[in-house]
Amino acid sequence: MKVLVALGGNAILRRGEKGTAEEQMANVRATARHLVKIAAGGSRMAVTHGNGPQVGDILLKEEMTKDAFPPMPLDVCGAESQGMLGYMLHQGMESELRAAGLPTHVVSLVSQTVVDARDPAFSNPTKPVGPFYTEAEARGLRSERGWTLVNDAGRGFRRVVPSPEPLEIVESGVVRTLFEEGVVVISSGGGGVPVVREPDGTLRGVEAVLDKDRTAALLALTLKADVLLILTDVDAVYLDYGKPLARPIRTLNASEAEARLSDGQFPAGSMGPKIQSAVRFVRGGGKRAVIASLQLAERALDGEAGTTVVA
Amino acid sequence: MKVLVALGGNAILRRGEKGTAEEQMANVRATARHLVKIAAGGSRMAVTHGNGPQVGDILLKEEMTKDAFPPMPLDVCGAESQGMLGYMLHQGMESELRAAGLPTHVVSLVSQTVVDARDPAFSNPTKPVGPFYTEAEARGLRSERGWTLVNDAGRGFRRVVPSPEPLEIVESGVVRTLFEEGVVVISSGGGGVPVVREPDGTLRGVEAVLDKDRTAALLALTLKADVLLILTDVDAVYLDYGKPLARPIRTLNASEAEARLSDGQFPAGSMGPKIQSAVRFVRGGGKRAVIASLQLAERALDGEAGTTVVA
Repeated sequence: MKVLVALGGNAILRRGEKGTAEEQMANVRATARHLVKIAAGGSRMAVTHGNGPQVGDILLKEEMTKDAFPPMPLDVCGAESQGMLGYMLHQGMESELRAAGLPTHVVSLVSQTVVDARDPAFSNPTKPVGPFYTEAEARGLRSERGWTLVNDAGRGFRRVVPSPEPLEIVESGVVRTLFEEGVVVISSGGGGVPVVREPDGTLRGVEAVLDKDRTAALLALTLKADVLLILTDVDAVYLDYGKPLARPIRTLNASEAEARLSDGQFPAGSMGPKIQSAVRFVRGGGKRAVIASLQLAERALDGEAGTTVVA
Repeated sequence: MKVLVALGGNAILRRGEKGTAEEQMANVRATARHLVKIAAGGSRMAVTHGNGPQVGDILLKEEMTKDAFPPMPLDVCGAESQGMLGYMLHQGMESELRAAGLPTHVVSLVSQTVVDARDPAFSNPTKPVGPFYTEAEARGLRSERGWTLVNDAGRGFRRVVPSPEPLEIVESGVVRTLFEEGVVVISSGGGGVPVVREPDGTLRGVEAVLDKDRTAALLALTLKADVLLILTDVDAVYLDYGKPLARPIRTLNASEAEARLSDGQFPAGSMGPKIQSAVRFVRGGGKRAVIASLQLAERALDGEAGTTVVA
């Protein structure tokens, strides 16, 4: 079986932790132990991951040191986070594969994802990034740096950036080659650094963020994976989540999933993009998408836990 | 011809520049234009690069924000710089290859290099990294973080870390596969993140820095490259460099190079490691190592400029 695993931020940095390198490395090792069970079952595996907390910290550090250093734009900060997380995941996976007596062919790529410069998201930025500002600071940033800032429920002003649709994985040929050869490829971290193609075909980074699950669906189709396995911090997708009658969904077809999305069962800020990505993957030719917690990864892949979405 | 190009820091960030992302990207594009001439000549090419200025900035930012965020150790900072520089180099190379009408198969890897935990460098750290401290701060850091700090000629105290010998490139199999398939592989940035193998075979990052030219020699041998092309900010290696009778060396064999190293012609802080790496490469089976400036890269590869070292 060919599996693309999409790891949530909690696979690397857990809520309430300080975020030391030791904590993150320990979490990554624990994550890798779960993933190695999938490889041990004979499946071919590729890995992608979120970068929210890490790129958030990098942005705050850039802001705090802006009088001493020119602040790096979002695309460069995203690439830095890929380096950091790719390093940790590569080291964790290789170490756990070795401990399990399995082949240790692992690689981690610095990844770019092409978006359309005319994507409507660019005229409607919605994703908050970076620190909070006072109203006066916000005015200054609007005029000096051309940022869009919104007033965030009394906590101050915050920059918002577009979240365009991922269209093409720049290094797709390489990822496919390595995946076919059985290498555990770690790529498209944080959804990939968003870039646009200029009219002359060259690439240019843009100030945007990508949804890692949407890129994961695209990557899974690019790899012709059988299964897109989205690992998050809940054991399954729920109907009426957070309400007294909340109940887990075991299987769901694409049409049912879309109907529930329309009903507002899966909010945009949490389960929504995962369900949309699952639907996109199975409609695009993937066999099934599975949403589960990290701890249940192996059982979910066997259809014994989590939520399975089929066409 | 199969060529490994080792880029110096000046290929990305030039002395006197502020280090904005725009400046670095423009430098990378200019660098890529020179390298694309090599690819256009029909050579297969891989690229490695330094990370000194960039990891230096990351370390200073970590220090300036240490009250708000747990500072990341050197290995993680090195991986971040690989993400940043790998992204810029990939984008620059792909764009310039496309502009030249050449195939655009480029990839950038997050790279680790194995060193020996018993390397004598670990008991004799010599490479200064990070900011300057007062004597009182230095005392605190010695006891709290176990750092070695030295008094740097009246400018204050500075942390020194080991620079051990690179022994093995962790992702060597993947780099070789991709290189053989004609992909321009960008890897081992900053010499690779230094790691040691634990007794159980797993990997662990260490607080050290690697010399990027030493790793380049190892990588060039791993790739069975014909030529190791070390690009720096001088047009060639000189005898009596900086003196009235300074004269460029056109060719040099390994024994001559070693004799001149013993004479002190090539200081440890500048040309020394490049000459040592050139000698290591040709003694290890490489056809020739060439040291030249970026502007002369193509001509130097043809033996018409720079300094060529042969066995």
